[in-house]
Amino acid sequence: MKELEDRIRKDGIVKAGGVLKVDAFLNHQCDTQLFDHMGAEWARLFADAPINKILTIEASGIGLACMASRHFGNAPVVFAKKAQSINLDGEQYSTTIYSFTKQREFPVIVGRRFLSEGDHVLILDDFLANGCALEGLISICESAGATVEGIGIAIEKGFQSGGDKLRQRGYHLESLARIVSMDDETGQIEFA
Amino acid sequence: MKELEDRIRKDGIVKAGGVLKVDAFLNHQCDTQLFDHMGAEWARLFADAPINKILTIEASGIGLACMASRHFGNAPVVFAKKAQSINLDGEQYSTTIYSFTKQREFPVIVGRRFLSEGDHVLILDDFLANGCALEGLISICESAGATVEGIGIAIEKGFQSGGDKLRQRGYHLESLARIVSMDDETGQIEFA
Repeated sequence: MKELEDRIRKDGIVKAGGVLKVDAFLNHQCDTQLFDHMGAEWARLFADAPINKILTIEASGIGLACMASRHFGNAPVVFAKKAQSINLDGEQYSTTIYSFTKQREFPVIVGRRFLSEGDHVLILDDFLANGCALEGLISICESAGATVEGIGIAIEKGFQSGGDKLRQRGYHLESLARIVSMDDETGQIEFA
Repeated sequence: MKELEDRIRKDGIVKAGGVLKVDAFLNHQCDTQLFDHMGAEWARLFADAPINKILTIEASGIGLACMASRHFGNAPVVFAKKAQSINLDGEQYSTTIYSFTKQREFPVIVGRRFLSEGDHVLILDDFLANGCALEGLISICESAGATVEGIGIAIEKGFQSGGDKLRQRGYHLESLARIVSMDDETGQIEFA
């Protein structure tokens, strides 16, 4: 998606260690007009899927998911919560996700009332690198018996393996910007 | 706002200790059509204010703020982040907020690049009870020299003191549903 790629080139900051800062428009300050256009693009890309629910994870995915919802007939958005601990009261689906940024595992939960067998889910998130967060959300959908109709990503780090692994498993994955390389010395970013 | 009050009566669950669960439509599963209507209502209530930025706090405020942005000329949304620790590198405004729910203080940060003297800010959040989170966001606006034009709240627990304190300090505060009493035995909720 050219608008997103242009914005990443303009306002993204490449840091050492494969880090891309996009907090000026994506995950700290949010450009809601851009989010709206991204939602429209996902709706175009997933037009054939009978999506009735959008699943994301707090916090950065929530704005994208809510803005996208309008383009999917106001499908309800459910965001998985990062929990202090997993509460085994049976009211929640839970899994653990490993965060490379924070170098630790953390538990993630979704209330059972909000995801079930009849649901056709679009999973949305801001970043895809190694895919750990997405694996967690897929596992929660599996626990609920819900169908994962597709996965929409804002920025895929194509030089990490998460995206290819998910495509090989047969998921319909659409990244609006797929970075194949970036250089923290020159600041240059190359898209697929 | 009648639509929100009706929804709270229908899907809200009153728990012991003054707790109201609204995770079916507000802060776990999100009814984005309702959010859109709430944004339109805040735009009506703050029509006279020259708002150019919306400030909220992760995670539950983000969806509301993004959906409201459309009704404020796509004003950028900035969400304060709950940090592990305050990094005193000078790139962030920071404060600490006491959470009664979690019974502890936690640091909150906003990047300096995203809030400054010229900004006219609408603060939005899902709940107002004792007002600690809002005090923190106001303090961050003060650090930045930004003007707080107004505070928009989804649900105010009017039987707690946070709202009245902020009104006494002269803030233009608008709560879309103001609960004056609720009973966890009968489930009854009374609005102002």
